[in-house]
Amino acid sequence: MIAVKGGGSTPFILRLMPGEDLRGSLEALVREQGLQAAYVASCVGSLKVAAIRFADAPAATKVEGPFEIVGLSGTLSRDGPHLHIALSDRDGKTIGGHLGLGSIIHTTAEIVVVALEDIEFSRKKDERTGYSELLVSGFPPARE
Amino acid sequence: MIAVKGGGSTPFILRLMPGEDLRGSLEALVREQGLQAAYVASCVGSLKVAAIRFADAPAATKVEGPFEIVGLSGTLSRDGPHLHIALSDRDGKTIGGHLGLGSIIHTTAEIVVVALEDIEFSRKKDERTGYSELLVSGFPPARE
Amino acid sequence: MIAVKGGGSTPFILRLMPGEDLRGSLEALVREQGLQAAYVASCVGSLKVAAIRFADAPAATKVEGPFEIVGLSGTLSRDGPHLHIALSDRDGKTIGGHLGLGSIIHTTAEIVVVALEDIEFSRKKDERTGYSELLVSGFPPARE
Repeated sequence: MIAVKGGGSTPFILRLMPGEDLRGSLEALVREQGLQAAYVASCVGSLKVAAIRFADAPAATKVEGPFEIVGLSGTLSRDGPHLHIALSDRDGKTIGGHLGLGSIIHTTAEIVVVALEDIEFSRKKDERTGYSELLVSGFPPARE
Repeated sequence: MIAVKGGGSTPFILRLMPGEDLRGSLEALVREQGLQAAYVASCVGSLKVAAIRFADAPAATKVEGPFEIVGLSGTLSRDGPHLHIALSDRDGKTIGGHLGLGSIIHTTAEIVVVALEDIEFSRKKDERTGYSELLVSGFPPARE
Repeated sequence: MIAVKGGGSTPFILRLMPGEDLRGSLEALVREQGLQAAYVASCVGSLKVAAIRFADAPAATKVEGPFEIVGLSGTLSRDGPHLHIALSDRDGKTIGGHLGLGSIIHTTAEIVVVALEDIEFSRKKDERTGYSELLVSGFPPARE
């Protein structure tokens, strides 16, 4: 475990409109605001279609909604986001996985993103997992 | 996308008791503390019965628990909350959707609500979606 | 409902490695940093195996992954954590419940824990529920 103690934080409140891309909008926020490290603190809304990579799958699956967004969490960095989502359908049944581009807002999304001051996230390919994994710098590690 | 940058924030920690209404308790907090904008940051607990509106459904469905609360997120305003919940049952199976009044605590709920200073949430009927959608005011928009 | 208004807060960013115990790592953070009250604000990652206590079950069930972590929330105290998790499998199907020890990281976990200053969490056996329930002290209650 790497544990890094942060300092101050700044909330951003987003409202997304019908037809907007959920992941693409969060990537745009990072770019436009120059965020170095942030996380999704809360999200409520709906999708008309979702692109989700299921556990250990090689690529995303496109699933047709409408879906309620019942969970969105993860980290945002200039090297890309890492977001997992949980969705529920017309029968209340839930599915979930890794959020891809191409997940499109149905009615709305109300999202709170918290930017971490004095912290910088980056991503580097990790041979053990095959993915670009999170690196955290800024404050000295509280534990490494 | 509308993106508004916030300022400071204040956490409230709630513990709900058996028999209390989950949504009603959050509405009471907003009223009693005079909160102008807040979000649910974390929630753990259980429900004995839940009232959930599934995706695109006209009204809430009453579902019998006991359920573990495995996700609760959304925004709180004086014009009402917008909350989505994920629940798991005795077999671990999960369901989810839009949280209605009439969702009753089984053993406990431990909730962290974060109030956003200098921000004001309101809700206004949006003809495109048919729902009262979130408006955010306070700081000048970081992007609109 | 008990509602307690907090003061400042400090984020900790964790990255867990393959083979580490999810709940055990959070317990270690509390111990090593001397945290008196904290909550999980965001978590993204994967598990190879999970130990989950389903709703009203007497003990945890061991379930084999790989799973994506699509939700983790709850509180951390020196008297132990109270964490609920939602997981999705290779087909996107989700399960959830109370997180036990023995839930092992598959590729990674990126977690934001927020420590609450001026607040102290403790747990005390509650005869009504049979569990050790959360007590919150520090600031005078905003409502009790």
